[in-house]
Amino acid sequence: MAETHDLAPVMLTVCTTCKRADVDPEGPRPGAVMLEALKEATLPEGVQLRGVECLSACTRGCSMVLSGGSERWTYVYGDMDPDTHVAEILDGIAAYAQTTDGLVPWRERPQSFRKQTVARIPPLKLPEA
Amino acid sequence: MAETHDLAPVMLTVCTTCKRADVDPEGPRPGAVMLEALKEATLPEGVQLRGVECLSACTRGCSMVLSGGSERWTYVYGDMDPDTHVAEILDGIAAYAQTTDGLVPWRERPQSFRKQTVARIPPLKLPEA
Repeated sequence: MAETHDLAPVMLTVCTTCKRADVDPEGPRPGAVMLEALKEATLPEGVQLRGVECLSACTRGCSMVLSGGSERWTYVYGDMDPDTHVAEILDGIAAYAQTTDGLVPWRERPQSFRKQTVARIPPLKLPEA
Repeated sequence: MAETHDLAPVMLTVCTTCKRADVDPEGPRPGAVMLEALKEATLPEGVQLRGVECLSACTRGCSMVLSGGSERWTYVYGDMDPDTHVAEILDGIAAYAQTTDGLVPWRERPQSFRKQTVARIPPLKLPEA
């Protein structure tokens, strides 16, 4: 585990326009509800939070992106539920924020991070395969 | 349209381990085939190409990521077919490479870029929603 002060800041980007199939389409957008729930939580050190309109992962709402500087992998997660996943999200971003490369060991990832990855994007500096 | 020399380099990252449901699982990986097809093509100015093993979009192969510096949106595309999509991919990345923010007008996007977006990731500098 690296010292937190050596690490790039982490950004959690939550889609505020995401819907979920199990939620009344006339009610508040589940994505906006999830952003508010995370704003009310205590985020791990070094983690920032923002909302954006539409991550183009509309079939996988609620969706969010976890990124952290030029040396970490970026992760897109989907099918998140603001009613059940907030605690797991906080655990998952805390583990991510403690890595230099964004690669959290599999057994240390919360269930939703293991099962609900939409895509991951390598850092620009990764050597060519 | 911005002058190309003012723009950050663009990176096209192709998953080399992607499979496709319509391809013999014993044959070459469609992702690796797509990377080779793109290597043989003439890429637009300012565009680099690399392969990586697994973008964690395994249900959407072939998959790839289009990114371009700290001011552009990043796009993940899926369901690409090396037999039919290479020309469209070249058109799509050329249009992307000519933007400052990565946002290509809808009507200028090739069909596969319109229909097969897996996710998009905003630049870090985007104002909070």
